[in-house]
Amino acid sequence: MSKFIVIEGLEGAGKSSAVRYVADYLHGHGVARIECTREPGGTPLAERMRAIVKEVHDERLTIEAELLLMYASRVQLVETRIKPALADGIWVVGDRHDLSSQAYQGGGRGIDANLIGAIKRAVLGDFKPDLTLYLDIDPAIGLQRARHRGELDRIELEQLSFFERTRQRYLELAAADESIKVIDAGQAPEQVKAAIEAALAHYLKDEPSCIPG
Amino acid sequence: MSKFIVIEGLEGAGKSSAVRYVADYLHGHGVARIECTREPGGTPLAERMRAIVKEVHDERLTIEAELLLMYASRVQLVETRIKPALADGIWVVGDRHDLSSQAYQGGGRGIDANLIGAIKRAVLGDFKPDLTLYLDIDPAIGLQRARHRGELDRIELEQLSFFERTRQRYLELAAADESIKVIDAGQAPEQVKAAIEAALAHYLKDEPSCIPG
Repeated sequence: MSKFIVIEGLEGAGKSSAVRYVADYLHGHGVARIECTREPGGTPLAERMRAIVKEVHDERLTIEAELLLMYASRVQLVETRIKPALADGIWVVGDRHDLSSQAYQGGGRGIDANLIGAIKRAVLGDFKPDLTLYLDIDPAIGLQRARHRGELDRIELEQLSFFERTRQRYLELAAADESIKVIDAGQAPEQVKAAIEAALAHYLKDEPSCIPG
Repeated sequence: MSKFIVIEGLEGAGKSSAVRYVADYLHGHGVARIECTREPGGTPLAERMRAIVKEVHDERLTIEAELLLMYASRVQLVETRIKPALADGIWVVGDRHDLSSQAYQGGGRGIDANLIGAIKRAVLGDFKPDLTLYLDIDPAIGLQRARHRGELDRIELEQLSFFERTRQRYLELAAADESIKVIDAGQAPEQVKAAIEAALAHYLKDEPSCIPG
């Protein structure tokens, strides 16, 4: 049965590389059909919502509108791409998913977790990733890496304390949910890759029906 | 004290004219500063959300994403324009507000009213219009009028039964809330105008502090 595996983490944690590692590992273990998604975005309409959230505007985007746009984008992606792919036997590897909203909008922005939970349940029901790999990084290091990539988007321009609160919430949520594995993203790239592969190997060992052949 | 007055109703009910009647009446009764808003939209960012909701797309916009975009647009308008205007002593006349989501997304699309209520409370709290004038029209007549105006948007392309369910919900909500007045929009224009003015006169009589001078 196909699975939904999500990569989470702060800016500069190495999510894009991790998505490739996961896809390569799955391909190498007999998974033929894999789709990669990113959030916010991932469909033409969801990408338009992403642009509103990410671009730097003259107009202040309220934190409530930001939260609702994140969930509008997410439900659009889940209903039109992720669920149909999974139903069709395709594995999905996501660059961010719901945990990001809980960490950034909840931890970072300080929106009440019950409120976020209410919106989440209202539109996503009990849909959730089968496995989440959270790449944990000191935000000072992560942001320095992200800055080297080029111009920062609206959210990446937040203060360091915002990302420290976001990381704290990520770690709290990971501690409370067995399907979230913490990967130390401060290690050398080859060590991060090995840790991701070990987490996948461990997950797939418990899910032998996943892997065809 | 300044007030937030909203015009509601189906396509072709005559909302734009009604907004003008209300603004003219208020100006004629000593209200100097009035802002008019429309929903979804009303700020540059909210107008981008409106475009996603209104345009006809190849991609199906899910009803949950539509609902969240409506509330994202609404909270952006309320926090950045409506509340600041009211705090500054400016009256606000709105072309649609929250009742539209309850009627269209709730009645028309069939989304659970409790779910809509949960999102509404989460992002708007107890903010609501002081007075709502609901222009009631038979959808068959309203849509005929709307078609004469030109091309129909994505929501206006729905089946008649969708608008009948929406109207039904409007009427139920109006019956349960004293701040919503039903105006028969099937009458001749001068009669609709007179009914709107009578409703305003009645409201302002009970709110003598509203009108300066």
